[in-house]
Amino acid sequence: MPPRPITFLSDYGLEDEFVGVCHAVIATVCPKARVIDVSHGVPRHDVRGGALMLEAALPFLPPGIHLAVVDPDVGAQRRAVALRAADERILVGPDNGLLVPAAELAGGVVEAVEIARSPLRLQPVSATFHGRDIFAPVAAHLAAGVELGAAGELCDPGGLVRLELPRARRQGRALLAQAVYVDRFGNVQLNADHDDLAAAGVRLGRGVMLELGPHGTHHAYYVRTFADVEPDQLLVYEDAARRLSVAVSHGDAARRLGLRVDDELWIKPA
Amino acid sequence: MPPRPITFLSDYGLEDEFVGVCHAVIATVCPKARVIDVSHGVPRHDVRGGALMLEAALPFLPPGIHLAVVDPDVGAQRRAVALRAADERILVGPDNGLLVPAAELAGGVVEAVEIARSPLRLQPVSATFHGRDIFAPVAAHLAAGVELGAAGELCDPGGLVRLELPRARRQGRALLAQAVYVDRFGNVQLNADHDDLAAAGVRLGRGVMLELGPHGTHHAYYVRTFADVEPDQLLVYEDAARRLSVAVSHGDAARRLGLRVDDELWIKPA
Amino acid sequence: MPPRPITFLSDYGLEDEFVGVCHAVIATVCPKARVIDVSHGVPRHDVRGGALMLEAALPFLPPGIHLAVVDPDVGAQRRAVALRAADERILVGPDNGLLVPAAELAGGVVEAVEIARSPLRLQPVSATFHGRDIFAPVAAHLAAGVELGAAGELCDPGGLVRLELPRARRQGRALLAQAVYVDRFGNVQLNADHDDLAAAGVRLGRGVMLELGPHGTHHAYYVRTFADVEPDQLLVYEDAARRLSVAVSHGDAARRLGLRVDDELWIKPA
Repeated sequence: MPPRPITFLSDYGLEDEFVGVCHAVIATVCPKARVIDVSHGVPRHDVRGGALMLEAALPFLPPGIHLAVVDPDVGAQRRAVALRAADERILVGPDNGLLVPAAELAGGVVEAVEIARSPLRLQPVSATFHGRDIFAPVAAHLAAGVELGAAGELCDPGGLVRLELPRARRQGRALLAQAVYVDRFGNVQLNADHDDLAAAGVRLGRGVMLELGPHGTHHAYYVRTFADVEPDQLLVYEDAARRLSVAVSHGDAARRLGLRVDDELWIKPA
Repeated sequence: MPPRPITFLSDYGLEDEFVGVCHAVIATVCPKARVIDVSHGVPRHDVRGGALMLEAALPFLPPGIHLAVVDPDVGAQRRAVALRAADERILVGPDNGLLVPAAELAGGVVEAVEIARSPLRLQPVSATFHGRDIFAPVAAHLAAGVELGAAGELCDPGGLVRLELPRARRQGRALLAQAVYVDRFGNVQLNADHDDLAAAGVRLGRGVMLELGPHGTHHAYYVRTFADVEPDQLLVYEDAARRLSVAVSHGDAARRLGLRVDDELWIKPA
Repeated sequence: MPPRPITFLSDYGLEDEFVGVCHAVIATVCPKARVIDVSHGVPRHDVRGGALMLEAALPFLPPGIHLAVVDPDVGAQRRAVALRAADERILVGPDNGLLVPAAELAGGVVEAVEIARSPLRLQPVSATFHGRDIFAPVAAHLAAGVELGAAGELCDPGGLVRLELPRARRQGRALLAQAVYVDRFGNVQLNADHDDLAAAGVRLGRGVMLELGPHGTHHAYYVRTFADVEPDQLLVYEDAARRLSVAVSHGDAARRLGLRVDDELWIKPA
């Protein structure tokens, strides 16, 4: 049996050796494992941003071991876990909510183990780099075929930490949404989708008003893609993760509007 | 037959999950394909910069499937293509000029197919992420051995979009060149080579004047490498892609001179 | 025999095609070699930073060929070398001190060859990109099983360039340390370890004073990990590379304190 593929997401960045050392640990444990880096550019300590990114990527990831580390409380009392989902994907990371949205997309957690004292971990375990010492080696052994139960102690999936994910809410013909992620291109992802906007009476191809409070009010078009408006025009569209997003064609919406993660905006028919 | 290697260049950056998801799609279609990331740091939407980078890298890339995505007009009417070059390399990406300089270096395009509606694409195709939905899966199937003709509809190579690549021009003993790329080290690549400078009467080892208009006039040496001048001195040299470049030994020429892509400068014998 | 794994560290960054082209050269020479990127984010030309990063990573890297390129004097008289350590690891890179701390951790250099004119190099060798033309192809051939002696001419390991690595020094109950590396999280690594601090009379769990000269005096706690202090508090801890570091829990110590590489600070019991 070839090893199962491992995917790897973190907020470690690529400037330092953190990601490379985790790859090296995996290659030492399971030399034939294929590792796919989802991204290591999650903003530092942004557990929610990492959870949303993992959830958006999951439908495209080959089923296997999904290693994710955004871990502001490393060394504190937070648990380290490996979770088996209903579709047999396994998720490995800190128990801080990072893994749960992806696990639910994979059918929900059917088995959970606590791995902080896993027999598969590297020893001695450092106080600050559990990616290297716990998460990567456990993921590698699981990829190699070790049973989940051998990775740690069974625990109750019902006790896993869950994130409070904000949801857009509608007031009549207006939708109050929040920015949850800003990508490299300055596209601003919202906590809303096509149905939310439709419920507020906004139809594809029509104009909308974006009310940003201190950042002013702006006209935009609700369209399918960038090319449906002129360069430099604002648009609202359903992005490739099926989340509503604000963009500027050939431009940077986050910069134009001064929008940052957690900012709120109202969307109304124009 | 093992799959052909895939190389991958884009302007997606590594902060978000775009590159990782494309890797995941490739691994799903063709688990044994080796993917070599050329770079994902092409400046956003810089089709010409991406084309120059791909052309510079090509002679060193193992022959295979060369996936490249710099796609400011995703979702608009631009075509998506896969091209077979005379040397059997296959290039996959948008039909916006990105692929053509590399294809010509590979002997020219001998077969072209339009892949926007390829039977090999992921469905549904999003409006904004054709890297994931069209280019990566088509590249992966081609790496796995699918015939080019099965990837889409044949089209006329003569109709491919070509970039207007600026060329340096000589006036007597002066060369008017343009900055076409600035690398991480601040080295400024020009649209000229050794022969252009020789034609202007500049010989290796001699001094040159760089006239930058609003950015002033600067003395530099035309030498073989950084170590041929003192630290902090300006040099002009033929870089590893055989393009003329301006650098500062142990320094940053772009910052020192205020040079950016598209800026013009005159080079004259000192 | 499968090829030996190759690890790769450099200051090339990921914006340009430099790293990708080196990977491509390796894949051309030795298609089955596995390449693990340790990091390409070493600060430009920072040989000491690269040497410390390689040394910190080494215990976790699978034994193989360790390619490292931080090469401010490319094209000058510095030698290019491949070194065999006592534990059979092979290190490949410029002879500027970059490789030596890792080689000593691997038991010391037992065989050294000069590879600038290696029969395994690409020809013609460019004046500015020895990563592509010398170091990567030599590393790939060594991974494929070529004997070290066939890579170049034997030279005296005693003649290798060594870095002057600063060492912290103690004056009574005070330790004078230097910042040697700042990571993505703003954690500031010092040239000292737990024993140095213990010798100065500082015990785990106690307060310390950090005297930074122009950057003021700050109270911190000497603890095991971030979670041992409140968010936003300063801490001194032994990091995952077993070097003493200064951090801010959930914050950025380098920014808070204005600390940069080479800055000095006194650490005293509070």
